[in-house]
Amino acid sequence: MSFPTYFEALDHRRMLTDYPVGDAFTARYRSMSRDELFAIQDAQFRELMQRGWQIPFYQRLWGAQGIEPGDIRGLADIGKLPVYDKSDLMASIHAHPPYGDFAGLGGADRPPAIFHTTSGTTGKPQVLMFGPWGREVGNLLVGRMYRWMGLSPADVVQSVYGHGMINGGHYIREAVTHFTNSIFLSAGTGIETRSANQVRLMADFGVTCLVGFVDYIRKLATQAEADGLFDRINIKMIIGHLGTEDRKATEAAWHGARAYDWYGVGDTGAIAGEGPDRDGLYVWEDAQYLELLDVDSGQPVARGGTGDMVVTCLYKRDVAPCIRFNTHDITHELDGRGELAFKRIVGFKGRSDNMVKLRGINVFPHAIGAIIENRGDLTGEYVCHLRRDAAQRDAMTVTLESRGGTDAAALGVLLKQGLGVEVEICLVEPGDTAAATEIDRRQKPLRLIDERGL
Amino acid sequence: MSFPTYFEALDHRRMLTDYPVGDAFTARYRSMSRDELFAIQDAQFRELMQRGWQIPFYQRLWGAQGIEPGDIRGLADIGKLPVYDKSDLMASIHAHPPYGDFAGLGGADRPPAIFHTTSGTTGKPQVLMFGPWGREVGNLLVGRMYRWMGLSPADVVQSVYGHGMINGGHYIREAVTHFTNSIFLSAGTGIETRSANQVRLMADFGVTCLVGFVDYIRKLATQAEADGLFDRINIKMIIGHLGTEDRKATEAAWHGARAYDWYGVGDTGAIAGEGPDRDGLYVWEDAQYLELLDVDSGQPVARGGTGDMVVTCLYKRDVAPCIRFNTHDITHELDGRGELAFKRIVGFKGRSDNMVKLRGINVFPHAIGAIIENRGDLTGEYVCHLRRDAAQRDAMTVTLESRGGTDAAALGVLLKQGLGVEVEICLVEPGDTAAATEIDRRQKPLRLIDERGL
Repeated sequence: MSFPTYFEALDHRRMLTDYPVGDAFTARYRSMSRDELFAIQDAQFRELMQRGWQIPFYQRLWGAQGIEPGDIRGLADIGKLPVYDKSDLMASIHAHPPYGDFAGLGGADRPPAIFHTTSGTTGKPQVLMFGPWGREVGNLLVGRMYRWMGLSPADVVQSVYGHGMINGGHYIREAVTHFTNSIFLSAGTGIETRSANQVRLMADFGVTCLVGFVDYIRKLATQAEADGLFDRINIKMIIGHLGTEDRKATEAAWHGARAYDWYGVGDTGAIAGEGPDRDGLYVWEDAQYLELLDVDSGQPVARGGTGDMVVTCLYKRDVAPCIRFNTHDITHELDGRGELAFKRIVGFKGRSDNMVKLRGINVFPHAIGAIIENRGDLTGEYVCHLRRDAAQRDAMTVTLESRGGTDAAALGVLLKQGLGVEVEICLVEPGDTAAATEIDRRQKPLRLIDERGL
Repeated sequence: MSFPTYFEALDHRRMLTDYPVGDAFTARYRSMSRDELFAIQDAQFRELMQRGWQIPFYQRLWGAQGIEPGDIRGLADIGKLPVYDKSDLMASIHAHPPYGDFAGLGGADRPPAIFHTTSGTTGKPQVLMFGPWGREVGNLLVGRMYRWMGLSPADVVQSVYGHGMINGGHYIREAVTHFTNSIFLSAGTGIETRSANQVRLMADFGVTCLVGFVDYIRKLATQAEADGLFDRINIKMIIGHLGTEDRKATEAAWHGARAYDWYGVGDTGAIAGEGPDRDGLYVWEDAQYLELLDVDSGQPVARGGTGDMVVTCLYKRDVAPCIRFNTHDITHELDGRGELAFKRIVGFKGRSDNMVKLRGINVFPHAIGAIIENRGDLTGEYVCHLRRDAAQRDAMTVTLESRGGTDAAALGVLLKQGLGVEVEICLVEPGDTAAATEIDRRQKPLRLIDERGL
């Protein structure tokens, strides 16, 4: 039987022309005007919409709103299309198992496809499908970003993103090996490579850059200290997802390494990341179209306002196009112009759908990370338990790991200021939140345990 | 900074011309003469030797024998070169940490490189390095083999090879996604995806083909039975490493799936595999040059004789060339001609360096798998303990899992016949060898525990 292989199905020359990497990347977007950039986006969007109309999921989504192909003449009309989110994808999978009807795989002559799932951080793992073009441009966006942050072929990268069915580890491995020429160690989570072995790899192979979720990366610093390996370890960069987490504590734990933040979700790939200036996250606007929509009204926020990130992947035109996907992650745009033509966001500020309403106040449990950063008395690990008492009153207990000397009353005042609502404080020994957060097993530790339904 | 990406560094058109896949593969090698095949091998070998002479490891290995470049004029002279094995690679790593001096990576302008380790089945994990050409031809050899065995784009493949630093899972994922167009589930080991979830994936995603080590694949059949999922699971093919293991028991456990055997090691990639005829393992002689050398004398065995497999990877000419690598795995060649021009071997018969001398007899503990196959009273799981008594006499206890009704005395006679030496029998409940074999955690379960040094 004959059919094109992955390499034959991928036009890698066109890819590298459309999405340059390295010096060609910065040279192109340093001087580009916003109008030129919009023209690049608009041309891709028109091609993307043609693909979208071939896919049952979008035919149904758009048809239900009475939208016809002629109604969307370009990117200026994107606001006429409905947004969708993970629940729509899960409903598609439920109705059309096992892959749903959003991939547009086609029949026997479909292109090669890559299949993974999400880690299921916010619920049941979700199907992720990629064609060669969407997959490799997605990889390129990460590799290009790492290189712009400063990664070079002389670097040795250790990844603690997980493998198995989960996309993350495979995705980052492809990004680094295909587009950066750095040496790559696919160590994976603490289950794949025990923490003691992780830090020994760093020492033995001269690892200079750690990539993954910073909660676990911070934990590995403790392991390296305990094993007395810091004289043999020299980490210069940490590239992860700082969110509202603790950049300074991560850098201090790794003896002055520089930490870089980026943002993306499984469906979309990398949406934005810091540059070498670390002054906000540049949105990869040559490949992604990002809207910020008001959490309640769904209308674009005023400039500088906080809203849900709604993403259209302009580049993902083969398998599983992503057109106005609501991540339910919130952020706001930064003022001014950075080093490139791309607009900048402040990064992940929380999840609008994981927000907790506590006595009428919107509370983001993940904000605690930032509130307690840089304190010598706390490890930075915490977990929130939400409970409903007999009087149907909700209360949140925040359990924090203390190294000793913590004034619980003063900490309560600090958290009340930061969260906007009073919470109960429970102090435990270092390591004692691990059973609840599952930090050893999860890509992203649990920070909120909602026991109100129990 | 500018340098070629992985795709630019790989001439995929030449690769597919030199190593055809699908119909082009069988069309080419069905009718080829042995002389034509030798000419293809010889041309590659001359190119390979030029690369070999650039690499410090081979300069040292060959120089120590007084060999000079002009001494090896072609493949006919290969016997003049010394063989080497894993211990030489480990010594190279010890002398030149962390990668050794056998990869020939070069300096800052080296090509993109892929770095992994072996699983450490037979000792400390070993460094594996690949360049784009060696990596992708290696992947192609597996993808091409799977397709010849019968895998088609309509198939859904679930892999239980492990990820993390280990090469296996990543390698097979690349082989399937780059060269077969089948849908691929990178489930990984039971640690990455729990057995209960593994069998649910099979049911939910219509998996038709399982690939990995058959010990764990057999264990998953027990899980599928326990969970009552067989009415939703339809496995047609199992592609693994049957070695002296139990083909019939694996096929029966999976309700009549067809099991296919292949052989390869991390350093060499796939060396040989069954065709659709399942009549011996075809050696991929367009890419691999296989010699069988007498375990004691190191001289070629007489036709049909059993010897160590010594492999020269004709295709691996960029990073970490492999020229006369002694796998210490033994086999013998089959008589007659199969469907292709390639010679055929019987498959993995055991390891010459893991062989146990018991009262003067060479014993291969792995042979027990074949001896006890197809018995309803035994699960097929076993582990051998080698002990030395106060009189310095060695004895082996074979612990086997019995479902009940096993006649230990009769089993002892059977094992004595098959192994050639008397062993003690210990019967335990199903599942009770797992702690010793570590079947849940290891790619290949432990079958021999040598306690003589304790």
